[in-house]
Amino acid sequence: MAEATVFERIIRGEIPCHRVYEDDRVLAFLDVAPQSRGHLLVVPKEAKATIGELSDESAAALGRALPRLARALARAVGTPHLNVLQNNGAPAGQTVHHVHFHLIPRFGPAGAAGSGLQVAWKPGALGAREGAETAAAIAEEVARDADA
Amino acid sequence: MAEATVFERIIRGEIPCHRVYEDDRVLAFLDVAPQSRGHLLVVPKEAKATIGELSDESAAALGRALPRLARALARAVGTPHLNVLQNNGAPAGQTVHHVHFHLIPRFGPAGAAGSGLQVAWKPGALGAREGAETAAAIAEEVARDADA
Repeated sequence: MAEATVFERIIRGEIPCHRVYEDDRVLAFLDVAPQSRGHLLVVPKEAKATIGELSDESAAALGRALPRLARALARAVGTPHLNVLQNNGAPAGQTVHHVHFHLIPRFGPAGAAGSGLQVAWKPGALGAREGAETAAAIAEEVARDADA
Repeated sequence: MAEATVFERIIRGEIPCHRVYEDDRVLAFLDVAPQSRGHLLVVPKEAKATIGELSDESAAALGRALPRLARALARAVGTPHLNVLQNNGAPAGQTVHHVHFHLIPRFGPAGAAGSGLQVAWKPGALGAREGAETAAAIAEEVARDADA
């Protein structure tokens, strides 16, 4: 069995946290290394490393918690602007290998002048043929998963 | 009534998309300006601008769709690494004012050497007193919402 992550230990109460919300399946608490004031982590109690491993029940409970937490966070810190980020795998920036959604309030304007998540957006262009082929490949895998 | 966003028009079938998944509440399709190959958008059929406005039903359905789509996407494009991003408000980088989750596959190593979402992570440090006060303020707003 893999060693318990810090989030599992927080869920078990072995490590303290600044808790803001808890239900049967979900825990939300402040990130101790915040990108901006009020930066929250929302985690399933189910101990899975990546989003694709979550049960339907955990995933639905996380989904349902996000709007409630977004509303509460907006009122508490005084900005309606917010980024939700969830990283899967070390190359994607994941450092704790237990699923977690970051809720990161954005203060001030977009970009480095404000505070919050800093994203460099570099859009490509999707060709019609590439789009059709890629969509078909993904749709086929969705169907295979549903049949499994 | 606000003018329909491009995503509402896609949901209605007025604008074509490279669709990969659809159910009663959720539609997923390829982003035409991808950050990396397979970049998906997952949208609720409910026409709301920000995550805090979503109904419980829409939010739970989105949550449930994310693991299924993440698994299918990983198999179709050949990388398990993935960022999930959802922006709320123009200062947070939102350009289409209908809720959408980006699923952005990550190829190669973290940072600019790979392809995918480019995030500059600049963690602060949360003081004990600031943490306690901020958590209490957010928890109070969560409770107010639950009572409403």
